[in-house]
Amino acid sequence: MNRSDTAPHRMRWWGWGVDGFDKPITAEAEELLIREIGMAEADNPPKDIAEVAIPDSRLDEADLAALRDAVGEGAVCVDHDTRVRHAVGRSYPDLARLRAGVLDIAPDAVVVPRDEEAVARLLAACTERGIAVTPFGGGTSVVGGVEAVDGGHGRAVALSMVAFDRVLDVDLEANTVTVQTGVFGPDLEERLAPLGVTVGHFPQSFEFSTVGGWVSCRSAGQESSGYGRIDRNVIGMRVITPAGAMAFRDMPSSAAGPNPRELFLGSEGTLGVITQVTLQLHRRPDEMIFDTYFVDSFEHGLEIFRDLEQRGHIPHLARLSDEPETLFGIEQMGGATGPKLKKYLALRGMDTPCMMLFGFGQESRAEARAARELLAARMLRHKCVRLGPIPGQLWVKHRFTSPYLRDVMMTRRVGVDTLETATTWEHAAELRRRIMDRMRAAAEAHGAPAYVFCHISHMYESGCSLYFTYFFREEPGRILDQWMDIKSAAGEAILEFAGTITHHHGIGQDHAPQNYEENTELFARVLRAVKAELDPAGILNPGKLQNGPHDLRERYDGSAI
Amino acid sequence: MNRSDTAPHRMRWWGWGVDGFDKPITAEAEELLIREIGMAEADNPPKDIAEVAIPDSRLDEADLAALRDAVGEGAVCVDHDTRVRHAVGRSYPDLARLRAGVLDIAPDAVVVPRDEEAVARLLAACTERGIAVTPFGGGTSVVGGVEAVDGGHGRAVALSMVAFDRVLDVDLEANTVTVQTGVFGPDLEERLAPLGVTVGHFPQSFEFSTVGGWVSCRSAGQESSGYGRIDRNVIGMRVITPAGAMAFRDMPSSAAGPNPRELFLGSEGTLGVITQVTLQLHRRPDEMIFDTYFVDSFEHGLEIFRDLEQRGHIPHLARLSDEPETLFGIEQMGGATGPKLKKYLALRGMDTPCMMLFGFGQESRAEARAARELLAARMLRHKCVRLGPIPGQLWVKHRFTSPYLRDVMMTRRVGVDTLETATTWEHAAELRRRIMDRMRAAAEAHGAPAYVFCHISHMYESGCSLYFTYFFREEPGRILDQWMDIKSAAGEAILEFAGTITHHHGIGQDHAPQNYEENTELFARVLRAVKAELDPAGILNPGKLQNGPHDLRERYDGSAI
Ligand SMILES: Cc1cc2nc3c(=O)[nH]c(=O)nc-3n(C[C@H](O)[C@H](O)[C@H](O)COP(=O)(O)OP(=O)(O)OC[C@H]3O[C@@H](n4cnc5c(N)ncnc54)[C@H](O)[C@@H]3O)c2cc1C
Ligand SMILES: Cc1cc2nc3c(=O)[nH]c(=O)nc-3n(C[C@H](O)[C@H](O)[C@H](O)COP(=O)(O)OP(=O)(O)OC[C@H]3O[C@@H](n4cnc5c(N)ncnc54)[C@H](O)[C@@H]3O)c2cc1C
Repeated sequence: MNRSDTAPHRMRWWGWGVDGFDKPITAEAEELLIREIGMAEADNPPKDIAEVAIPDSRLDEADLAALRDAVGEGAVCVDHDTRVRHAVGRSYPDLARLRAGVLDIAPDAVVVPRDEEAVARLLAACTERGIAVTPFGGGTSVVGGVEAVDGGHGRAVALSMVAFDRVLDVDLEANTVTVQTGVFGPDLEERLAPLGVTVGHFPQSFEFSTVGGWVSCRSAGQESSGYGRIDRNVIGMRVITPAGAMAFRDMPSSAAGPNPRELFLGSEGTLGVITQVTLQLHRRPDEMIFDTYFVDSFEHGLEIFRDLEQRGHIPHLARLSDEPETLFGIEQMGGATGPKLKKYLALRGMDTPCMMLFGFGQESRAEARAARELLAARMLRHKCVRLGPIPGQLWVKHRFTSPYLRDVMMTRRVGVDTLETATTWEHAAELRRRIMDRMRAAAEAHGAPAYVFCHISHMYESGCSLYFTYFFREEPGRILDQWMDIKSAAGEAILEFAGTITHHHGIGQDHAPQNYEENTELFARVLRAVKAELDPAGILNPGKLQNGPHDLRERYDGSAI
Repeated sequence: MNRSDTAPHRMRWWGWGVDGFDKPITAEAEELLIREIGMAEADNPPKDIAEVAIPDSRLDEADLAALRDAVGEGAVCVDHDTRVRHAVGRSYPDLARLRAGVLDIAPDAVVVPRDEEAVARLLAACTERGIAVTPFGGGTSVVGGVEAVDGGHGRAVALSMVAFDRVLDVDLEANTVTVQTGVFGPDLEERLAPLGVTVGHFPQSFEFSTVGGWVSCRSAGQESSGYGRIDRNVIGMRVITPAGAMAFRDMPSSAAGPNPRELFLGSEGTLGVITQVTLQLHRRPDEMIFDTYFVDSFEHGLEIFRDLEQRGHIPHLARLSDEPETLFGIEQMGGATGPKLKKYLALRGMDTPCMMLFGFGQESRAEARAARELLAARMLRHKCVRLGPIPGQLWVKHRFTSPYLRDVMMTRRVGVDTLETATTWEHAAELRRRIMDRMRAAAEAHGAPAYVFCHISHMYESGCSLYFTYFFREEPGRILDQWMDIKSAAGEAILEFAGTITHHHGIGQDHAPQNYEENTELFARVLRAVKAELDPAGILNPGKLQNGPHDLRERYDGSAI
C-alpha cells in the first residue's frame, strides 16, 4: 500500500467549511431558543479524527492492484483520514455521526482518476471485480448521496472528481462555458469574472460544492430566480458509463426525442460519471444592490411575491421570510439593533413582521437603481414598510457563512437541519402550515419541541419553493430517532399537500421513501431499467435514488448516538 | 363489422387543412421558380379517396371483438376512408403518396378510446394479441410519426385521441390549465381567451394539431421565443403505458431525480399514451403590434438578433429571413407592390435585403408601443431600413395558411418541403450555408435544381433555430428519390456542422438515421430499455425514434411515384 496517496478534500472533516468562520449565537437568539426548545447548557465538541471508528477496508491486494492499474499509482487512497473525509456528506445525521465518531460505513478506498480514460478503466475494473463506485464531488450532499453503500457487492470505493478541475473553454459568442465537473464554485467564477460573465449559480454550499454535484442533483442557487436553476443551464454534456461513453453536443434546444441531458440531470451518480458540461453564461452585474420591505404576514407576502413573479416584475433575487424566521434573524442581530427594529416595525403596525429581501443584479448600477425604484413604486399599493439596503447587504455578506451556525449549535447539543419543497402557488400557504404543524408535533412526541421557520427564495410562474430550518434539543442516545421522526413527518405532509419531496437537495437515500410515492414505483422501475442498460453490474452509487430505502430506518439506527 | 364506426379527422384527406384557403402563386413568384428550378406547366391533382390503394385490414373477427371489448362498440373503425385518413401525416412524402393514391401502409383499424380506462384496456388487449398501436393526434407529423408500422406484429391500429377533448381545469392562481391531450389548438385557446390567458403555443400547424402531439414531439410555436416551447411549459402529466399508469403532479420545479415528465416529452408515442397535461398559462396580450426592418445580409441580421437576444431585448416574436426567403416573399406580394419595395430598398443600399419582423405581445397596447419604440432606438446603431407594421400584419394574417401553398405547388409538380435545425450562435452562419450548399448539390445531381431559403424564428441565449424551405421540380417516377437525396444531404450537413437533426419536428422515422449519430447509439439502447420496461411486448408506435430506420431507403421506395 502506498501510504503517500491522499485525495484532497477542502472541508474540515467534522463540520462545515474551514476553520475561522464560526460565530457565537447572540444572547438574544439564545434566549429565544431557551424559550422555544428548551436549549440547555451543553458541550459536545468533535473528537479527533483518529478516534473516529470506521470499518476496515475490505479491499485485498489484488483489488488494490486492479484499481491502481486503472487510475494510476498515487491515486488510490486507503488511509484512515482520507476514508473518514469521504465517508459521508453534510446532512445533520452525517454531522452528528462524524462528531460522535461513530460511522458504520466508509469507502474501502478513495480513488482519484485524472481523465476520462481512467474513469472508463476504473468502471471496467470495478464491473469485473464487483466493487461499488460512488462519485464524490464536494461531498456536500445533504441526502446521504455520497455514502459508499456497497449494494451487496461487499466492497465500495469513492471516486473523487478533484482531478477534473479545468475550465476548458469560454465561448463569448454563444455565451457558454465548457467545464470539467470537479471544478468548485469559486474557481469557476474566478475564471469568469474578468470576462464580465457568470454562471450565476450560487447554492449556499457554493464554496465547497462542484459543478458535477450541481448537475447530478439538479441544484438551485440563491439567484436561480434570475439566472435559472442549474438544470436550465446545461446545454452540453459528456458522461462515462460502464456501458460506454456518451457525448451530447452543445445545443440551445432540440426536439430529437426526449432530451438525453435531462436523464443525467438529477441522476446522482447512479447512471454514469458526468465528466464535462457546457453551461449557459450570463452577463455579470457590476454589483448587486438591495432593498428590504416588511409585511404583516407570510400569506400577505406570498400574494405580493406571486403577483410580482407572474407580472414579470420580480427582481433577480427575492426572498420572503415567515414570522419566526424574521424574528430569529432580528434576534441574531444582537445588541440594541434588534429591539429598535422591532419597535419601529410595531409602531407601523407590523407586530409579526415578515421580511422581504430584494436584490437587483442589473448590468449597471444605474439600471439596478432604476429597477429598485420601479419596484418601490409598485410596492406602494401593498401595505408594507420599506427599510432600505442594509439587511440585504448583511445577507450578501453572510450568504455563504450561515451554515457554520449549525456546527456551533451542535456543540451546544441543538439539532439543526433544513428541508425544502416546492408547490404551485395556490397550495403554498397551506403546505407550509401543514409541514410546520407535523414537524412540531413529531418533535413534541420526543418531549423536545422544535422551533421551525420558513422562507421562499425561488419563484416560478406557477409556484415557488419553501425552505424550512428547524432546531430541536438533542436527547443523547436517540438524536437520530428525533431527527427521523421530524423528517418523516415533514415528508409525509409534503406528499399529502401537493409538494415535491425536494426542490433542490436531491433524493439520495433520505428522500427515496417519498420519491417512490411522488414519482411512482413504475418510474423507479424505469430508472432501474436505464441503470441495467448503462451499468449492468449495478456498481454505480448503489442504494440511492431508484434503489434508495423505502424507510429511513433502513438506513439509520435511531439509537446509535 | 359495424360500418357506422368512423373516427373524425379534421383535415382534407389529401392535403393541408380544409378547402377554401388555396391561393394561386403570383406571376412574379412563378417567374422566379421558372428561372430558379425550371418549374414547368403541369397538372397533378389528387385522385378520389376511393381510388387510393391501401393494403387490406389484417384483423380477424376475434381481433375486432377484442378491440371492441376494450374501447366499446362504435369505436373501432375499419372503413376505407377512415383508414386512408389515418394512414400518414403531412410530410412531403406523405402528401406525394396520398396524391398519387399509392400507400403501402395503413392502420388495420382506427380505434377511438373514450377514457383512460379504455386506453389501458386497449393496450392490454393489444399486448396480449400482438397488435401494434400508434397514437394519433392531429396527424400533422412531418417525420413519419403516425404511420401504423406493425413492428413485426403483423397487425397495427391507429389510436385516435379525438375523444380526449376536454379542458379540465383552468387555475388562475398558479396560472395553469389542465387539459386532455386530444384537444386541438383553436379549441384550447377559445376556452382560454375570455379569461385573459393563453398557452401561447402556436405552431404553424396550430389549427390541426393537438396538445398530445405537441408534447409528444417537443414542438415549438411561432411565439416560443416569448412564451417558451411546449416542453418548457409542461408542469404535470398523466401517461398510460402497457405496464401501468403514471401521474406526475403539477410542479413548478423539482430535484427529485431526473424529471420524469422530460422522458415523455418527445417520446412520440413509443413509451406510453399521454392522456392529460398541465400547462403553464401566460397573460394574453390585447393584440400584437408589429414592426419590420431590412438589413443587407443574413449574417448581419444574425449579429443583430444575437445581440438583442443576449441583452434580453428581443421582442416576443422575431423572425429573420435570409436573402432568397425575403425575395420570395416580395415576389409573392404580386402586382406593383413587390417591384416598388425592391426599388425603395435598393435606393437605401439594400440590394439583397433580409427582412426582420418583430411582434410585440405586451399586455397593453401602450406597453407594446413603448417596447416597439425602444427597439427602434436600439436599432439606430445598426445599418438597416425600418418599414413599419404592414409586413407583420400580413404575416399574422397568413400565419396559418401558408401551408396551403404546398398543395398548390404539388398540383404544379413542384416538390415543396421544409426542414429545421438549431445550433449555437457561432455556428449558425456556417451551418446555414453548408446545409443549403449540400441540398442544392443533391438536387442538381437529379438535374432538377432546388430553390432553398431559410429563416430564424426561435432565439435562445446560446443559439437559434434555422428553418429551411425548398422547392424542386418533381421528376415523375423518382420524386421520392429526389426528396430523399436532398433530405439526407441536409441531414448529413446538420450533423457535420454542429446542428441538431430537429429543433421542433421530432424524430419519427425520417430523422432517425441522424438521431442515432447525434444522441449516440447507446442512448437509443437506453430508450429501448425504457420501452422494454413500459411496453414489454413492443406494441407502442414501432419503427419510430429509438427503433427508427438507419437509412431513409429502409422506409421509402425511391421509384414508387
Ligand atoms: C450547508 C449546505 C448548503 C446547501 N445549499 C444548497 C443550495 O443552496 N442549493 C442546492 O441545490 N443544494 C444545496 N446544498 C446541497 C448540496 O450542496 C448540493 O446538492 C450540491 O450540488 C452538491 O455538490 P457536491 O459537489 O458537494 O456533490 P456531492 O455531495 O459530492 O455529490 C452529490 C451527488 O452527486 C453525485 N455526483 C457528484 N459528482 C458527480 C459527477 N461528476 N458525476 C456523477 N455523479 C456525481 C454523487 O455521487 C452524489 O450522489 C447544500 C448543502 C449544504 C451542506
Ligand atoms: C404545415 C405544417 C406546419 C407545422 N408547423 C410546426 C411548427 O411550427 N412547430 C412544430 O413544432 N411543429 C410543426 N409541425 C409538425 C407537427 O404539426 C407538430 O409536431 C405537432 O406537434 C404534431 O401534433 P399532432 O397532434 O398533429 O400529432 P400527430 O401528428 O398526430 O402525432 C405526432 C407524434 O406524437 C404521437 N402522439 C400524438 N398524440 C399522442 C399522445 N396523446 N400520446 C402519445 N403520443 C402521441 C404520435 O404517435 C406521433 O408519433 C408542422 C407540420 C405541418 C404539416
